[in-house]
Amino acid sequence: MIGRYFDYNATTPLHPLVSEVMTQALDTYGNPSSVHNVGMSAKDAVVSARQQIAAFLQCEPDELYFTSGGSESNNWVIKGYLNRWSGSPFHAVSSVIEHPSVRDTLRYWCQSAGGEVTFVPVDEIGCISAQKVIDAIRPDTKLITIMLANNETGVIQPIQEIAAAAKSRGIFFHTDAVQAVGKMPIRLQELGVDALSFSIHKLCGPKGVGGLYVNKAYALEPLIHGGGQEMGLRSGTENVVSLIGAAEACRVAQMDMAFVQAKLFAYKHRIIDQLRLLVPNLKVNGPMGSGCTLANTINIGIPGIRGEALAAYLDQRFGIAVSVGSACSSNQEKKLSYVLQEMGLDEDEIRSSVRISMGAFTNESDVGYFLQCMEHSLVHFYHCMPS
Amino acid sequence: MIGRYFDYNATTPLHPLVSEVMTQALDTYGNPSSVHNVGMSAKDAVVSARQQIAAFLQCEPDELYFTSGGSESNNWVIKGYLNRWSGSPFHAVSSVIEHPSVRDTLRYWCQSAGGEVTFVPVDEIGCISAQKVIDAIRPDTKLITIMLANNETGVIQPIQEIAAAAKSRGIFFHTDAVQAVGKMPIRLQELGVDALSFSIHKLCGPKGVGGLYVNKAYALEPLIHGGGQEMGLRSGTENVVSLIGAAEACRVAQMDMAFVQAKLFAYKHRIIDQLRLLVPNLKVNGPMGSGCTLANTINIGIPGIRGEALAAYLDQRFGIAVSVGSACSSNQEKKLSYVLQEMGLDEDEIRSSVRISMGAFTNESDVGYFLQCMEHSLVHFYHCMPS
Repeated sequence: MIGRYFDYNATTPLHPLVSEVMTQALDTYGNPSSVHNVGMSAKDAVVSARQQIAAFLQCEPDELYFTSGGSESNNWVIKGYLNRWSGSPFHAVSSVIEHPSVRDTLRYWCQSAGGEVTFVPVDEIGCISAQKVIDAIRPDTKLITIMLANNETGVIQPIQEIAAAAKSRGIFFHTDAVQAVGKMPIRLQELGVDALSFSIHKLCGPKGVGGLYVNKAYALEPLIHGGGQEMGLRSGTENVVSLIGAAEACRVAQMDMAFVQAKLFAYKHRIIDQLRLLVPNLKVNGPMGSGCTLANTINIGIPGIRGEALAAYLDQRFGIAVSVGSACSSNQEKKLSYVLQEMGLDEDEIRSSVRISMGAFTNESDVGYFLQCMEHSLVHFYHCMPS
Repeated sequence: MIGRYFDYNATTPLHPLVSEVMTQALDTYGNPSSVHNVGMSAKDAVVSARQQIAAFLQCEPDELYFTSGGSESNNWVIKGYLNRWSGSPFHAVSSVIEHPSVRDTLRYWCQSAGGEVTFVPVDEIGCISAQKVIDAIRPDTKLITIMLANNETGVIQPIQEIAAAAKSRGIFFHTDAVQAVGKMPIRLQELGVDALSFSIHKLCGPKGVGGLYVNKAYALEPLIHGGGQEMGLRSGTENVVSLIGAAEACRVAQMDMAFVQAKLFAYKHRIIDQLRLLVPNLKVNGPMGSGCTLANTINIGIPGIRGEALAAYLDQRFGIAVSVGSACSSNQEKKLSYVLQEMGLDEDEIRSSVRISMGAFTNESDVGYFLQCMEHSLVHFYHCMPS
């Protein structure tokens, strides 16, 4: 049941409007590269999707490249940009809380191509200081990549400030906006970044499709060579049906943004306030202000209770889905959340944390049910505890 | 109208059974990496798709990695394997008729990592000689990559023989089977290759999904780093709905293979025989035997008529889609087909060629309609010609 799903930062249900256009589009089967009518109508669909998504992000259609998702976009921008310095020394600046597709790509590339990365720290509420990023810049810094909003805490980073500093120094600046697009207004011109990654399945669209904005002034090297689709920079037959769905997901997100975000911000406060009554020493991992955090994300520590056990109990007993750490690392060995570690939480604090992330379909009564189940669960766990 | 579509090698219509399972699957929205029930049911779907597709290809599920399609698979296997020799000299063997995602990736990688490639030639009917591939092997040859079936001519290459030669010399052998999977039985154990690329949209499945088989004895470096999906080697949230569709496309292809191939082989002969009556000097670009060519593909030259003009006329006048060259290069400047060039055709012969490719939905009456329209078109063009 979608109303019991509180893990929107992992992925989202398909919006019924997206589902509808995709179902209708299933018979748009041409190859956009074919010159006959069947191909042309597929091409028209891709052109139109690119225009709609570009309008949503406020960029030009020819600055928008479609990919298979956020991980590909992050890999592509880092490898495709840093590649030009292979052989000569280069330096990149990033942060300690980036997604693995940024962090591991930087590590891999620097190791294999001989560069260096500085991962700037975060403070105790998960914020990256623009000044610390600026201080990390060296004469050989070629790339800065800092995420727009963190997947575990929802913290929105000072991207505009960092972008301005990068621009004034002529340094290429990329932001991983996978968790931000669809959850906060994105105006690329105002943001001032040179590149931005996004993924459609985080905003009630299909999986397997995403994109990369790249400022026209920069030319990336392709990650995927071949037939020359995506203006010669990303080969592979276009994922037509999913792109039609992606455009619709962006349209709906745009249309509902103000309403959904206001609603979720209210739910967030209600959840935290009510949980504080049940757990006086509740810890909120992250800031509470509306400007510096996503409305949909709550990361809390409940002293004395294992987050993993609480999440499993909520799932098995009540059908409620929350998460511990990010989905991307949960299929590997159980590791402690590196994001919370970098915020200075100790092992007990990390192990007692859960992430609750809401979305377009979360409503008042879902929040009521969630709080009721949380109360039951807390009673259950506190009763089981050795006093 | 699907019955007028004769361009299955560019892409295929979705099979109604695939369309049905995908429509039903649209509400399977979990992230397979999430540990709650919503995530687990998505994971189950991916596990089951991997098992079904592995059974179809006759490999182990843990030798099968899902990607965004054939171009990504080809890029990944080449870069991910050759990367280990960066810095030390290496040599690769390929052919002059490979898809751009193989050819251009090899060129790019060798240029940037300092290797060399030998592209072996083809004969006048588009066949690659296994002996010529073997003769091109050098002491520093690390990789051989030869396609299983050509997209423009349908010629099936002697992969088993090349694979045996590669194996006996300890050389990694990859085949791009994008045009073969679904059109001829693939038994990976018998084929003897170390890696094989495929794309689902060539067999009446969705676009944006494909895969790479890699023999367990070899470890590739990832092309996309990150969250560690696909056994740590291809990161990015799994494209769950499309994978469910992919498994169904493979199931249907398997079930219908013998019937469809027999039918298409008969249509192919009927088309060629009848066109020969209309155009006595018709040229068939490729061999005619059933063992060395795909049943669905016909590549013909009609002396004195421009293929491009004929294709456009068939499309505009009769709604029939055929192609000139491959779809992958048709969105770029009009270039001559390099496949036909390498077969020794002169410019006039190439310009007079068209590709007709059929598939699961082509039936007797479609072929009748096609032949009727071809007759009309030929009369039209021959009448316009200066005598």
